[in-house]
Amino acid sequence: MRAVAVKAGASSPEVVEIDAPEPDDGEALMRTLRVGIDGTDFEVLKGTHGGFPEGDDYQILGHEAVGVVEDPNGTDLEEGQLVVPTIRRPPAGSNEYFERGEPDMAPPGTYLERGIDGAHGFMSEYFTSPAEYLVPIPAAFAETGILVEPMSNTVKALEHSFSSRSVFDWNPETALVLGNGPLGLLTLAMLDSTVERSYCLGRRDRPDPTIDIIEDLEATYVDSRETPVTEFADVHEPADLVYEATGYAKHAYETVDALAPNGVGVLLGIPDDWTFEIDGGRLHRELVLENKALLGSVNSHLRHFESAKESLDRLPDWFLDRIITDVFTPEEVDQAFEGGDDRIKTVIEFGTR
Amino acid sequence: MRAVAVKAGASSPEVVEIDAPEPDDGEALMRTLRVGIDGTDFEVLKGTHGGFPEGDDYQILGHEAVGVVEDPNGTDLEEGQLVVPTIRRPPAGSNEYFERGEPDMAPPGTYLERGIDGAHGFMSEYFTSPAEYLVPIPAAFAETGILVEPMSNTVKALEHSFSSRSVFDWNPETALVLGNGPLGLLTLAMLDSTVERSYCLGRRDRPDPTIDIIEDLEATYVDSRETPVTEFADVHEPADLVYEATGYAKHAYETVDALAPNGVGVLLGIPDDWTFEIDGGRLHRELVLENKALLGSVNSHLRHFESAKESLDRLPDWFLDRIITDVFTPEEVDQAFEGGDDRIKTVIEFGTR
Repeated sequence: MRAVAVKAGASSPEVVEIDAPEPDDGEALMRTLRVGIDGTDFEVLKGTHGGFPEGDDYQILGHEAVGVVEDPNGTDLEEGQLVVPTIRRPPAGSNEYFERGEPDMAPPGTYLERGIDGAHGFMSEYFTSPAEYLVPIPAAFAETGILVEPMSNTVKALEHSFSSRSVFDWNPETALVLGNGPLGLLTLAMLDSTVERSYCLGRRDRPDPTIDIIEDLEATYVDSRETPVTEFADVHEPADLVYEATGYAKHAYETVDALAPNGVGVLLGIPDDWTFEIDGGRLHRELVLENKALLGSVNSHLRHFESAKESLDRLPDWFLDRIITDVFTPEEVDQAFEGGDDRIKTVIEFGTR
Repeated sequence: MRAVAVKAGASSPEVVEIDAPEPDDGEALMRTLRVGIDGTDFEVLKGTHGGFPEGDDYQILGHEAVGVVEDPNGTDLEEGQLVVPTIRRPPAGSNEYFERGEPDMAPPGTYLERGIDGAHGFMSEYFTSPAEYLVPIPAAFAETGILVEPMSNTVKALEHSFSSRSVFDWNPETALVLGNGPLGLLTLAMLDSTVERSYCLGRRDRPDPTIDIIEDLEATYVDSRETPVTEFADVHEPADLVYEATGYAKHAYETVDALAPNGVGVLLGIPDDWTFEIDGGRLHRELVLENKALLGSVNSHLRHFESAKESLDRLPDWFLDRIITDVFTPEEVDQAFEGGDDRIKTVIEFGTR
C-alpha cells in the first residue's frame, strides 16, 4: 500500500510502498479516508518532536484521521463504520494512565504517539488499531471528521479550565484565542456558544481567509503587530479565558496581563527553549491578587473525542467548508506540505466512503 | 481605648488612645483577646501595601484576631461568644462578590481590608463588625484562634488546587511548601493528613525552631542555599503540590521545575516588581507536555474560615504550643514588632477570656 512517510535523514515526506498492516487480536483494520496535516507534522519532519518507531528507518506521518472499518476482525465494530483513531498508545507493558483511560495525563516517556512519537501514523491506505482507541463517527463526518482530534484537545483544555474555576461563581463572558491557525479557529468557533464576546489574535494582513472567518464568527481580529498581548486588556477588555495556540513562549506569560481577575489561561503550544526577561515579580503578584490561573494542557482522551464529535456536529456548514481549504492525493504530498497563508487545514485524501 | 496603630508619615506602630467604637445596626461589639502579627503588617508599616481609612491620619493594625462578643447589639450572636473576624469588607455600595459571599474573589479596588487597606484593623481593646463577617469559634480557641485567618487562606488555596485537578485521577503523594514562616508551617501541618511525604523549604541554619517543627511533623527540611527550588525534584522527588508562601518571585516560575507531571503549584506570595530572565520556552513547554498548573490565590471567605476552624481542631497541641512563640501586651508593641529568627507567630494580647 501507499503511505506518506519521512525516511531517516530526510526532512520532507514522500510516498513509500509498504505492506498493508494486518490486525492483531483486538485490532480492527481500517481503510483510510482522510488525514489532516498540522503543525506537529512539520515538527516531526524537522526532527524536533517525537521519534521513529523502534527498529524502523521511516515513520508514517499523520495523526488526524478518519477511516472506515474494512475488517472488524472480531471486535465490536461493524464493517463500513467510520472511525477516528486516538493518538496515544501504551508502551510495552502499558501503565496506570492507559489502564484508567487517561492517556492524555501520561507523562512524557510513558506513551507512544501514532504519527509523532515511536509509532506509525495514519497517513497510509490502511491502518490498524485496537478497537478501544477508535471513536465511531457518523457517516456524515467522512470529510470533516479529521477535525475531531484537534477539537478534542480543545475540549480537554476547556474542561480543565472550567474545573479550575469551579469552586466559585465564574461565568466567562470574554475569550481571547491566541493563534489563528486551524486549532485557534476551531476553538473560536467552539467557544461561540460559551462566551458573549471573543477575540482571535494573529499577525496577518487583510485580505486573509482566517480574518474573514474570525469576523464571520462575529469575533474580533486582533493584529498582534498593532496590539500585542500585553496591551490587549487595555485596548479591548480583559479576557476571562485565554487559549494559547501559538507556541510562542512569551504568550504564556503575557497571558497574565490579558486575563480578567479570576480568569484562566490555558496553554497548548509547545515552544523550544527560549530565555528572555519578564517582570516576574509583577506577574506573580497579579496571579495572586487577582486569583488568576495558568494551565498547561496536552492531548485528550476518549471522553474528549466523544464530546468533540458533538461539538463538530454543532459547527456551521459554512465554517467547515472554509476551514478545510486544500485536499490533495497522496501523490501530491509535496504540494500538501508546502503550506502558505491561503491555507487553513490541508488534508490528504486516500479514498472516499 | 488603647489601639496599636501607625500614624501618617510613621513607619513603626505605637499605642494610641482613641474612642471605643460603637456598633451600628447589624454590628456586634467585641472585646479583643488576641491579634496575631504577620508579614502583611510589616508591609502596611512600610506603606507598600494597602492604605489608610479615608479621612483618617492613622490606621489601626491587625487582621488575625480573636474577640469575645461584649454586646451582640441585636444580632444573632450571644454575649461571651468567641469570634474570629474576616478581613474584607465591601466598599460603599457593596458589589456582586460580597453579595454572593465570595469577597476573596473581588478584584483589587472593589474591597476594603481591615487592618490593611482602607479600614481599621482589630489591634485595639474593642472592635465592631457586621455579624455576617464574624465566625464563631469554641472557647477552647481563645489563645490559638488567631491562626484561623491564616489557615483559611490555605484552605482556599488547597480547594482551588484540588478543583483544578478534579477532572482526572489525582492523588497527591508529595507536597513542597516554599517558606517556613508561620503560614508555611501551618500549611505543612494541615497537609499532614493529605499527602504521604512533605517538604518545607527555608534558608535557616540549625539549630532553628522552625526546622525542629518541620522535622517533628516528619517532613523534610530543604535548605534553599543547598537545594534551590530548581533542583528540588532531582535531589528529592517531584512534588504533586507546591505551595508558595515566600513572596520570592522566582519561586513562582521555579515551581514548574519542582512539580511532578499533572501537579499544581499554588502561589500566595505578593512580591514587588522584579525583572529577571527565565527560560520561558522550556517552562511553557513543560507546563503543556506535563499538564501542570499554576494558580494564584488570595484571601478566603466564610466557608474557608469554617473549614480552617475544623483544621485547627485537628492540629496537635505540641505544634500549637510551639508555633505561637511570643505574646506581648499592647504596651510592648516595639518588642512585638521586632521580629527575629527565634520567633514564629507573635501575638499581642489585649485580654483573656
